[in-house]
Amino acid sequence: MSVTHPAGFHASGVAAGLKSTGALDLALVVNQGPTFDSASVFTANRCKANPVLWSQEVVKDGSVRAVVLNSGGANCYTGPEGFQTTHAVAEQVATGLGIGAIDVVVCSTGLIGLANPRQALLDGVDAAVAGLGPDGEGAARAIMTTDTVPKQVVVEGAGWSIGGMAKGAGMLAPQLATMLVVLTTDAVVPAADLDTALRAATSVSFDRLDSDGCMSTNDTVTLMASGASGITPALDDFTHALTQVCSDLAMQLLRDAEGAEHDIAITVLNAASEDDAVEVGRSVARSNLFKAAVFGKDPNWGRVLASVGTTSAAFDPADLDVAMNGVWVCKASTPAEDPAGVDLSGREVTVTVDLKAGPERATVWTNDLTHAYVHENSAYSS
Amino acid sequence: MSVTHPAGFHASGVAAGLKSTGALDLALVVNQGPTFDSASVFTANRCKANPVLWSQEVVKDGSVRAVVLNSGGANCYTGPEGFQTTHAVAEQVATGLGIGAIDVVVCSTGLIGLANPRQALLDGVDAAVAGLGPDGEGAARAIMTTDTVPKQVVVEGAGWSIGGMAKGAGMLAPQLATMLVVLTTDAVVPAADLDTALRAATSVSFDRLDSDGCMSTNDTVTLMASGASGITPALDDFTHALTQVCSDLAMQLLRDAEGAEHDIAITVLNAASEDDAVEVGRSVARSNLFKAAVFGKDPNWGRVLASVGTTSAAFDPADLDVAMNGVWVCKASTPAEDPAGVDLSGREVTVTVDLKAGPERATVWTNDLTHAYVHENSAYSS
Repeated sequence: MSVTHPAGFHASGVAAGLKSTGALDLALVVNQGPTFDSASVFTANRCKANPVLWSQEVVKDGSVRAVVLNSGGANCYTGPEGFQTTHAVAEQVATGLGIGAIDVVVCSTGLIGLANPRQALLDGVDAAVAGLGPDGEGAARAIMTTDTVPKQVVVEGAGWSIGGMAKGAGMLAPQLATMLVVLTTDAVVPAADLDTALRAATSVSFDRLDSDGCMSTNDTVTLMASGASGITPALDDFTHALTQVCSDLAMQLLRDAEGAEHDIAITVLNAASEDDAVEVGRSVARSNLFKAAVFGKDPNWGRVLASVGTTSAAFDPADLDVAMNGVWVCKASTPAEDPAGVDLSGREVTVTVDLKAGPERATVWTNDLTHAYVHENSAYSS
Repeated sequence: MSVTHPAGFHASGVAAGLKSTGALDLALVVNQGPTFDSASVFTANRCKANPVLWSQEVVKDGSVRAVVLNSGGANCYTGPEGFQTTHAVAEQVATGLGIGAIDVVVCSTGLIGLANPRQALLDGVDAAVAGLGPDGEGAARAIMTTDTVPKQVVVEGAGWSIGGMAKGAGMLAPQLATMLVVLTTDAVVPAADLDTALRAATSVSFDRLDSDGCMSTNDTVTLMASGASGITPALDDFTHALTQVCSDLAMQLLRDAEGAEHDIAITVLNAASEDDAVEVGRSVARSNLFKAAVFGKDPNWGRVLASVGTTSAAFDPADLDVAMNGVWVCKASTPAEDPAGVDLSGREVTVTVDLKAGPERATVWTNDLTHAYVHENSAYSS
């Protein structure tokens, strides 16, 4: 299911030996056509991993026939040899499938600065090509790192569908995260329209997830269209379905964020612009003090306003309203309803900030800052 | 000593009953002249506490005769009544000292959104006026919140001196922190020169301290010159001494940061501009992933580069060098010396990033992200 649900796609997941546990660590998703249109978005980090440097070239012509992904090593800051490893992996996939390497997107995730064992990867590619089939589960599992569950989704259109899989459980930040996503569809959609739809969908889903403010070096989202359904949906319909797919996967990432005990949705109302709303939401999402307070089940709305005040958004500092879980604890920048009425015992937390400055709104999602987050991220490479 | 070391200053610290523990919580520092020149800098947060709103008006004419400070409540987002409390406190100080309220700076620190008990403050002011004397220790203790030690410093000039006290142990961020600082000097320096010197000194000290990326609503630094020494130092000499004072207090704040186990100095070399160097340093200082790794004694330089890559500074992503504690773990964006040689067992950690893009440099200081930080900030208001 998931990436293999739309007609025209096969996938596989194998253990190439990159993970010391022997778990699945190499995934392959292949578009069997008849069309090979694609679109991709990559991390905005200027320090990009070798697979990103490679794949940015691959996607330029709007045609991608396969995505190969490995966990167990990010292949970032590994020097010229690291780039050669990425290239060799693409060539191995191409040889195995009888296609050109320039149509093979490569994704890697794991520690930065560690060389990936090239021969193990190449042997893994051979096994993955041999194992290709209609089951997407192995591929979804092979890209997991600190993820506790595989992340998959399917959305049905009228005679066509979109499938997706994702990995990511930290460094979820603006313009994506340590996040690898493969999206597939059997709709007939030319590459330019795929690009339009993908940018629209990611801008309101993955781009609004800010787990810990850290931006990865490896993030890649690749969408492939096989055209196997023979149906060309209206672009609006397709974009709508794709946004559902991306939003669903984004929420799966949020719920699996490293060490988190709360999922926090920060909605900014009545902003002068959507950019203002996102800026304010993101500033709250990045306040360690606020996030630690949520972990402590403390409705500390002062820390919300202190974050709002660091932005350049339009608002009157003396006339801000703040609600937590629906309780308006602050009205006109003055204490209002009793914060004791805010129940933070559940996993879901909502924060609402009313800027009273215009008609726009946006929601940004984040997690609380917990002991488990510190533990997981202080012990990751040791 | 400290703020009362320069001639012409008295101080006191009393327990006004704002802290439930009965500890000292109200401080008064009075300039006895003959001059009353002053300069101040305030938080850049647009959501400013009532004492900041008041004090910004007070300092406009370059004359300040007293600073009154309370812990136990920030008086921020407490509505019009909160502003009236600040005003009443200034009036009470003015009456007690026989001066005008418009020459009284008011500072508050503590929780946001809680009204300070006005009568307790006014009674405390009376006790503080009655207790004024040459000992600055009580004042330094009265402004402590989560600080574990009072923070004071004296720097001697040629016949004149500068004294200072500070509070702050978290929310240390750009353009100051939850940080209250009173600086005193018996040098004869006109207000305009004090302003020049203070901005120069804070820009390379407090402004480069970024403990947790959070910016407070209450930060205030006020410098008063009594002229009691009768000596007018060269502005360069005065600025140099003032920078020493601010840097010393900044390092005391760093060492007392909430829950920190490591003090991290991030030095950016060979930047195209000082702004570039500061931007890069600050981006590393704000990486939760990097800070958690330092807590775990993990020399995870990949997280340093991932942060550098989020900036707009001039550099070639393929040619960055990174050292930790003097070990060049990354050269030309490729693994170099063995990270196992980086000993992170001590409190002091240095990170050096060589941008190879110009002649400028800067150092930004931060702390690690620890279990204790999460604990302290999740339990603060409960």
